[in-house]
Amino acid sequence: MELSTNKKILIVGLGLLGGSYAQALSRQGFSVRAITRRQDSVDFALEKGWIEAGKTEPDPEWIGWADLTVLALYPHILLEWLQANAKYFSPGAFVTDVTGVKSAIVDRAQELMPEGVEFIAAHPMAGREVCGVENSTAEIFRGANYIVTPTEKNTPKGIALCRSLGERLGFARVSELSPEKHDRIIAYVSQLTHCIAVSLMTCNMDPRLQDYTGDSFRDLTRIARINEEMWSELFQINKEALISQIDAFAGELHRIRTYLSDGNEEKLKEMMRLSTERRALFDKPLQKSE
Amino acid sequence: MELSTNKKILIVGLGLLGGSYAQALSRQGFSVRAITRRQDSVDFALEKGWIEAGKTEPDPEWIGWADLTVLALYPHILLEWLQANAKYFSPGAFVTDVTGVKSAIVDRAQELMPEGVEFIAAHPMAGREVCGVENSTAEIFRGANYIVTPTEKNTPKGIALCRSLGERLGFARVSELSPEKHDRIIAYVSQLTHCIAVSLMTCNMDPRLQDYTGDSFRDLTRIARINEEMWSELFQINKEALISQIDAFAGELHRIRTYLSDGNEEKLKEMMRLSTERRALFDKPLQKSE
Repeated sequence: MELSTNKKILIVGLGLLGGSYAQALSRQGFSVRAITRRQDSVDFALEKGWIEAGKTEPDPEWIGWADLTVLALYPHILLEWLQANAKYFSPGAFVTDVTGVKSAIVDRAQELMPEGVEFIAAHPMAGREVCGVENSTAEIFRGANYIVTPTEKNTPKGIALCRSLGERLGFARVSELSPEKHDRIIAYVSQLTHCIAVSLMTCNMDPRLQDYTGDSFRDLTRIARINEEMWSELFQINKEALISQIDAFAGELHRIRTYLSDGNEEKLKEMMRLSTERRALFDKPLQKSE
Repeated sequence: MELSTNKKILIVGLGLLGGSYAQALSRQGFSVRAITRRQDSVDFALEKGWIEAGKTEPDPEWIGWADLTVLALYPHILLEWLQANAKYFSPGAFVTDVTGVKSAIVDRAQELMPEGVEFIAAHPMAGREVCGVENSTAEIFRGANYIVTPTEKNTPKGIALCRSLGERLGFARVSELSPEKHDRIIAYVSQLTHCIAVSLMTCNMDPRLQDYTGDSFRDLTRIARINEEMWSELFQINKEALISQIDAFAGELHRIRTYLSDGNEEKLKEMMRLSTERRALFDKPLQKSE
């Protein structure tokens, strides 16, 4: 089911992602409203023309108005919000999210849906090192991946609608994973990388470091500017998967340490060749999935 | 002492860096010759106009011709080359290098210099994930750091000349470190980052990973495409410093693991705030040192 522009869209939470959704969807001609905590976020999005109207409190009528609601909230706030407001969704409506962890969220969110309302989860893998609607831009979706994480409760129609949303937003690739597989992969490609960046940044306190760094250090620590509220919550929710990825990574790093300490250049080179080979796969141009 | 364009420059080794030096210096009007192993590298650089002449074997007359020789060679080849050819340098000549490790190289290189010839070491912190003169470009020096690593055997004149070379090449910042301090810092900002990228790439074998990654994973593994001959040699030469950086980093990562496993969100956030604060220093614009 294609997401046609006559669908009415409600965005809950005008942060970096919610604002970027609002920008992308209003540009495509959708009717977009927003509910968010701060009046200045509403004002900003109104002024930019990203939303038609905005409120700072949940409004049952607005929630019932929407064909598709996007919950762009921190995980624990998302569940609290649904507990209080899910009853206002209209039958036939769809609800999606942007949360970076899935197993702990999707089942509970689906249980909270009233009859005839479908929650279909998705993870837009896009972001910046800054937050807030003032930093929103639909540009962050270009070249990025969008992962739909359906459960057995989802319908083909809901899944298709959610995929279509990813395409409308401008993502380069839309794919599907189970919530469990998503969380294992995200622990690796996103959460572990943030743990590494933080550890790399805090393991040395030389104050003049920036005079001596090359691109590699700057690349590896770009994400070391981290929103601690959001990431510590995401880490905690997914901590089992993340710990097992930390252990796998630490094991490989220890392997390098052993080869170095033993002077085993052959094994070290072998590992580097494998790394080069696997990384080369990433440099192939992305295919548009549309 | 400013490096004036009447100085005659010999580049030994036309790889990625040697070629980029040749390009930058010939553009500035220097007379540049090259000695390198492969005739096709000579032909490429000649055709581009980066060198006036090139040879595939060391030529005593050419070595004596140079006011400044740049050794753009792997560490062990650099020392072998000097053992065989340092005697041909003319009194008053200067010799520099591009090697990524210093302590093990500089002392030995300085011992190999004939009377009146000064070896002044430098590390241009620039590179690409590809090698060979065909991929050379002086663009890699823009915004990058250049570190001169003098010893007590160096003269103010030699140090100034080498700094001037870094500026002529177009580096954003030229600084000085002792070889020992350089090696400790490089173990951290460059060698450790390469170990991390390789470990991150090899610790998970999911073949469809590229469908699910965000920018962070791609940033952290860009350098996982690695020249295994060069890096395993650099790692081995600097292995004590590198192992101690691996241990410091692994300790921090383990700290995150402990906070996660204990559910200690406060400590985790504290570490993230420190990381954010320290990383922010890097996003200030670089000052030109010229």
